[in-house]
Amino acid sequence: MNPADHTTPPPPDPAASPPDHTTPPSDEWTTPLDLRDPVNRWLDERRDDAIDLLRRLVRARSTQGHERAAQQIVAEHLRILGLEVDVWDPDGPTLSNDPYFCSPRTDFGGSPNVVGVWKGSGGGRSMILNGHIDVVPVGDPSQWTRDPWAADVDEGRLYGRGASDMKGGSVSLLLGVAALRSLGVRLKGDVIVQSVVDEESGGAGTLAAIRRGYRADAALVPEPTGMRIFPKQQGSLWFRLTVAGRGAHGGTRYEGVSAIEKTLPVLAALAHLETERNARIDDPLYAGSPIPVPVNVGSIKGGDWPSMVPDRVTLEGRLGVIPGEPVEAAQAEMAAALGAIADDDCWFAEHPVTLEWFGARWLPGDVDEGSDLVRSLSARYRDVLGEDPVIAASPWGTDAGLLAAVGDTPGVVFGPGTTAVAHYADEYVEIDRVLEVAAIVALTLVDWCGVAR
Amino acid sequence: MNPADHTTPPPPDPAASPPDHTTPPSDEWTTPLDLRDPVNRWLDERRDDAIDLLRRLVRARSTQGHERAAQQIVAEHLRILGLEVDVWDPDGPTLSNDPYFCSPRTDFGGSPNVVGVWKGSGGGRSMILNGHIDVVPVGDPSQWTRDPWAADVDEGRLYGRGASDMKGGSVSLLLGVAALRSLGVRLKGDVIVQSVVDEESGGAGTLAAIRRGYRADAALVPEPTGMRIFPKQQGSLWFRLTVAGRGAHGGTRYEGVSAIEKTLPVLAALAHLETERNARIDDPLYAGSPIPVPVNVGSIKGGDWPSMVPDRVTLEGRLGVIPGEPVEAAQAEMAAALGAIADDDCWFAEHPVTLEWFGARWLPGDVDEGSDLVRSLSARYRDVLGEDPVIAASPWGTDAGLLAAVGDTPGVVFGPGTTAVAHYADEYVEIDRVLEVAAIVALTLVDWCGVAR
Repeated sequence: MNPADHTTPPPPDPAASPPDHTTPPSDEWTTPLDLRDPVNRWLDERRDDAIDLLRRLVRARSTQGHERAAQQIVAEHLRILGLEVDVWDPDGPTLSNDPYFCSPRTDFGGSPNVVGVWKGSGGGRSMILNGHIDVVPVGDPSQWTRDPWAADVDEGRLYGRGASDMKGGSVSLLLGVAALRSLGVRLKGDVIVQSVVDEESGGAGTLAAIRRGYRADAALVPEPTGMRIFPKQQGSLWFRLTVAGRGAHGGTRYEGVSAIEKTLPVLAALAHLETERNARIDDPLYAGSPIPVPVNVGSIKGGDWPSMVPDRVTLEGRLGVIPGEPVEAAQAEMAAALGAIADDDCWFAEHPVTLEWFGARWLPGDVDEGSDLVRSLSARYRDVLGEDPVIAASPWGTDAGLLAAVGDTPGVVFGPGTTAVAHYADEYVEIDRVLEVAAIVALTLVDWCGVAR
Repeated sequence: MNPADHTTPPPPDPAASPPDHTTPPSDEWTTPLDLRDPVNRWLDERRDDAIDLLRRLVRARSTQGHERAAQQIVAEHLRILGLEVDVWDPDGPTLSNDPYFCSPRTDFGGSPNVVGVWKGSGGGRSMILNGHIDVVPVGDPSQWTRDPWAADVDEGRLYGRGASDMKGGSVSLLLGVAALRSLGVRLKGDVIVQSVVDEESGGAGTLAAIRRGYRADAALVPEPTGMRIFPKQQGSLWFRLTVAGRGAHGGTRYEGVSAIEKTLPVLAALAHLETERNARIDDPLYAGSPIPVPVNVGSIKGGDWPSMVPDRVTLEGRLGVIPGEPVEAAQAEMAAALGAIADDDCWFAEHPVTLEWFGARWLPGDVDEGSDLVRSLSARYRDVLGEDPVIAASPWGTDAGLLAAVGDTPGVVFGPGTTAVAHYADEYVEIDRVLEVAAIVALTLVDWCGVAR
């Protein structure tokens, strides 16, 4: 964030109230269970402040390239909490040469990353709390029954673009840290709060934070999981296929080769590929999913004249990458499936389908279900909510994939929003869920990082 | 054509030399055979003039909306021949209310129709000679190895956009009439030479000529048939289908319904419809065609994001109409075929395919193979070329359909160009074929209209 951003000081942020020394920390508070009631009480009292913070973040309209105002709110919040705050515009030219870089843009002016570091006293495990500040566009405004930027609250839900994906989750992180700081808890391990840009386009913001040196023993990413815990996250790659035909007049269409007809075996090959790949998945975390790792064809376009035989069709889609699967293996399997079409149709021997990997890419993430991280988070879930969490694998990619693969920081995804409303009209998040995740995050930090006596 | 067009007089047109009184008509010339050698000799001597006329027409670049310069050349040619010439801009507002009107535009400024009438002495049958002056766009210029507007002549071929479709044919008509006029032949029946606009968009120019009152006992339309005679012409209608799906994130694609997947049964239904319709065709004129009356899907478009399940696909195509088949029957059969998809897939019961008829439409034409017109044209073909013509049915629609259905003027299609190059790069016509058709047209007029003693 450049100095010009600070000519107007931000309004006071009650949700980020400084350490509360009227209630000195008890030396008895060493376990998550000790802290459960104080944290819950603190959060209950700050409910309105939490709503206010989320409201201001939604209203900051942080679509790609316009994240600065929202990041200023986050940075100020972290400063008030007393964290060391690092704000910087990712360096496009350097970043775009990174082999893991994936973004439609190379200029990140207007899109600063924000990181706040709460240094621990030493001897504990560190944790990255990673939320993205960018939101997808509103889409067709006529589909919304509410103003996407008004952040209206109605019957316990806060509505607006980004409420679920994932400003609600980011507020959970900020509140969890604020609760511990306000209660005077001292942790052994470092807590690194990241508010990153560009997740929706493939993770350039998180990549920039990794390249700046931020790493930890674990990461928590509060994407909209609907309160489920996702130790494993599906990756995804965008592909573009071009299917060739041969033009002719439609009245003598037998003189040509329709690229639309030749698209049918391509679609069949993709369906077969999806079936084969999913048949291999025996991970119980995917047991509840009809198609754990889908191959989705998202768009099709070909031909431009009703009376002509189309000579080209382009398909664009996303290939799901199985947790633990190398991206290159998934790519090679798809290329082989497309190449095999020629075995049944010799047209493809001379006119092979063109395969390009383009646009966004999310790496898969893969944390063991029995790991300390998952056990700790699950236990704190039970502490706060009194029931076992649902543990599953994510149907989509998140920045946790980059954190693990590039930043050597294994991550779990767990957040208060819901996929069903993310990216859609009338997106919302339930405020109770935001506060519950805040409590679970606070107690998990206590557990993971350890409390200093 | 408005008066402003005549401020610069056109250059002299040797191919339209006025009646040649140095060779007075012999009273012996009463049959086509009498005239065969004089006509052939006259055409041989005017070969360079014919090339010059065709060249000037190609160079006039008469794409839609820019037909005036080419029409001026035609009109001047007809005037020099001594015909009564009628030039007018079709009246868009009136025309566009006509039930047979079909064009993407309603303003015909810059696009005059030209008609030249050679009044017969009476007692003979009349004939319309109908050529369209509009040409389709050049398309991708990089596909051309020659300048599409240079009208280069090389090894007996004249190259350029419109050479085959159908200025070569129009020059055949003009030369055929010029030969008879120059040789002093007097016909009993009227000859109505039409140079119309807008054929490539559905026939608004010919419709305007019909509505202006031009009718005859028969018509000859020299579209590029490759010297074959087409007494029957396939009609065609453009359709647009919209297939509905339900959007969802690609990672949970099972929560949505892919409009691309739902397009597969629609394509299958269209293929089945094509098979069924063609199985009914037992007309021997279609014996040589693998698919006499195709259903062609020319374009497809759907979805706009690789990671989303597409919620809509649009298909555009052309439905071939069988000669003799009412357009409404073809439309109803297609609607029924699309409706029947719901029998196998209940998705379509609640989300029926939307069917629109849009854009261009060409009516089918249907002249009996044993009719006087076909027999006369075939006999003159034998007179000139010494062999039997190929008689077939056209794979595409022409203005002959409108002439028959609206103008009560049954027509045969027969021309020097070839479909294989029409609408493509490096379009050309063979000059010998242009002259041969001119001779056949001249002798057919003698036969059909009768010679006045």
